[in-house]
Amino acid sequence: MNRKEITLADVKAAKKRIAGIAFKTPLRPSLSLSEKNGKKVYLKLENMQPSGSFKLRGAANAMLSLSEEARQRGVITMSAGNHGKGVAYVASQTGIQAIVCVSEMVPKHKIEAMQKLGTEVIVAGKDQDDATEFALKMAEEKSLTFISAFDDPDVIAGQGTTALEILEENPDIDTLLVQLSGGGLMSGVAVTAKSMIPDIQLIGVTIVKGAAMVESIKAGKIVPVEEVPSVADALQGGLPFDNQYTFDICRQNVDDVIQVPDEQIEKAMAFGFWKERLVLEGAGAITLAPLLFNDLDKLGKNIAAILSGDNVDVNQLMEIALKHQM
Amino acid sequence: MNRKEITLADVKAAKKRIAGIAFKTPLRPSLSLSEKNGKKVYLKLENMQPSGSFKLRGAANAMLSLSEEARQRGVITMSAGNHGKGVAYVASQTGIQAIVCVSEMVPKHKIEAMQKLGTEVIVAGKDQDDATEFALKMAEEKSLTFISAFDDPDVIAGQGTTALEILEENPDIDTLLVQLSGGGLMSGVAVTAKSMIPDIQLIGVTIVKGAAMVESIKAGKIVPVEEVPSVADALQGGLPFDNQYTFDICRQNVDDVIQVPDEQIEKAMAFGFWKERLVLEGAGAITLAPLLFNDLDKLGKNIAAILSGDNVDVNQLMEIALKHQM
Repeated sequence: MNRKEITLADVKAAKKRIAGIAFKTPLRPSLSLSEKNGKKVYLKLENMQPSGSFKLRGAANAMLSLSEEARQRGVITMSAGNHGKGVAYVASQTGIQAIVCVSEMVPKHKIEAMQKLGTEVIVAGKDQDDATEFALKMAEEKSLTFISAFDDPDVIAGQGTTALEILEENPDIDTLLVQLSGGGLMSGVAVTAKSMIPDIQLIGVTIVKGAAMVESIKAGKIVPVEEVPSVADALQGGLPFDNQYTFDICRQNVDDVIQVPDEQIEKAMAFGFWKERLVLEGAGAITLAPLLFNDLDKLGKNIAAILSGDNVDVNQLMEIALKHQM
Repeated sequence: MNRKEITLADVKAAKKRIAGIAFKTPLRPSLSLSEKNGKKVYLKLENMQPSGSFKLRGAANAMLSLSEEARQRGVITMSAGNHGKGVAYVASQTGIQAIVCVSEMVPKHKIEAMQKLGTEVIVAGKDQDDATEFALKMAEEKSLTFISAFDDPDVIAGQGTTALEILEENPDIDTLLVQLSGGGLMSGVAVTAKSMIPDIQLIGVTIVKGAAMVESIKAGKIVPVEEVPSVADALQGGLPFDNQYTFDICRQNVDDVIQVPDEQIEKAMAFGFWKERLVLEGAGAITLAPLLFNDLDKLGKNIAAILSGDNVDVNQLMEIALKHQM
C-alpha cells in the first residue's frame, strides 16, 4: 500500500489553500452549557459554512490541490449529502467542472440543491454502492478525478483545518467532541489536535445503531453494519473494506466514544434552536447531546463541540422544536 | 461642543481592542439572492455574535477603552435590547461590573437574559426616558461610566468594525445595506466605508413609521416621532435632541434610504429562516427585504447586507415562518 502520511503541515497548507472558499467559523462560547457542566464550553459553528457544513473544507482542499491539468478535466464524486453540496459549491466558486452521482433513493430537493449550484447530477443505480461504482467507472473513462467523501489525504487535511482554527483561537481547549462516521472529520481533527496538544481528549460522538467506525474499532477490523434510520442521517453508512486512512487514524487516536439515542439527538436539535438560535441537522447537533445528558466530569475543563452542519428539512426541525419546547 | 472626530484609525484600533470578545463574523455569499438580483450578494452574519448582535462591538470597544480606574468603578447603561445584552456580555467576559437600567415596560424574559450573564438589572421608571434619567443620575452619584447605546465615539468606532471586516475581506463591495435607527451602526459603517472606498453607496434600511433618523434627516434637524409598533422593534425609538454624533454623520453620508413595511419584514425573516437557515429578528432581517422586493438595478454590482441580530422570540419566528412558507 502506497499510503501518504498526513501531517500538521498538510493541514496548515490546507488552511491557506481553502481561505476565501471555506470560512473560519466562529468558536462561540455557550454560557448555558458552560454553567450546566461547570466547564468552559465552546461551539464551533460549521453549520455557518456557505455550503452548510464542514465538508466544504475537505472538498475545497482536494479540488484546489489538483494540478492545473486535472482541474481542467474536472472532478466527480458520489454523495447527495453534505459532501456533494461541498463539491458543488467549490465547483461554483472555482469554475472546476463537477459531476455528482447519486442513487435513485435520493429525494428530488437534494438533487435540485446541487443543480442550482450549476453542478451536473447523475442518478446512477439503486443504492450508494451502485452510484459509487458508476462514478469510479466514469472517472476512469473521462479522466475525471474522483473526490472521496472521507478516505482521502487531502480531504482529511481539509477537515483538519476545523481543529486548527479551534486550537489556534483557544489553546486551552483540552477536549473535543467530534462527529464520528466515516472518520474524515475525526481523522483530520486527530492529525491536527494530537500534534498541537498531545494529551487532548478526542471524543467521537455518533449514533447508537449502525455506527460503522465504532463497530469496526471494537472488532479491530472493518466490519459491515446494518443501516438503521436515524435523525442524524448524515452519520449513517458503512465503511468500505478498502479503507486506507480513516480507520487506522481513528482507532489510534479516538480516546472515547459516546453513542447518542435518537430521542437525545432530537432534544439536542431543539436545544440548538431554542437556546443557541441555530438551525442544525441531527448530525450537526449530536455533539450537544453529551453536554446536555451525560456526566462529563472526567473530561477536561475546556470543551469544544463541533456543530457540523445545517442540512435539515426546516419543517422537520420545526416539528422537533415544537415537540421539545425549551 | 467638544466633539471628537471619529476616524478609520479609531475603527482599526477598535478592531484590535475587541478581538477575543466580539467575533469576526462570516461574510457569506447568498447564491439565491445573487441570482435573483443579477449581482453578487453577501450577508454579514452579525446574528452569530455571542451576544446575538453587532451591538457587542460597540459595547466592547467602549468598555475596553476605559481607564483601569474607570473599569474598577464599573459601567451603567439603559437598554433592554441588544445593547443591554452586549454590555452584559462584555461584563461577563471582562469582570467589569455593569448595571443595566430598564423601564417597567420590559418583559421579564429580557431582564432574566441579562441577569443570567451576571449583570445587575434595575427596573427604573415607566418608560425609556425615565430609565435613562435614572441611569445618568446613578452614574453621577456612583461615579460609573454611562455607556450610550449609539451616540458615543467609542461605540460608533466599535460598530464600524463591521464594515472594516466586510471591506478587508472583499474590497469589491460597492454597496452596503445597513440598518438605520439611532445611527450608531450606520455612523460606524460610514466613517469606515467612505474612508476606504469613497464612492461606496450606503443604503439605510429601516421601518416605515416612526423612523426617527429618516424624519430628522428630511427635516434637517432632530424631530420627535411617534412610536408605532413594528416587528422590527429594535429599530423603534426616538433620537435624543442632544445628539452629538450620529445625526450629523448619517445625514452627511447616507446615500439613500429604503423603508420596509412590516409585511415585507416578516417575509424577510421567513426567507432568512427557510432559505438561509438563520434565526433573525425583524431588524436583523430587514436588509434582506430590498433584495427580495425592490428593484436594485441602480445599485452596484457587489452588495453586502448586514444581518444585525437574532434577538427574536423563537415562537414568533416559527409563526412567521409558517405564515410565509417558502
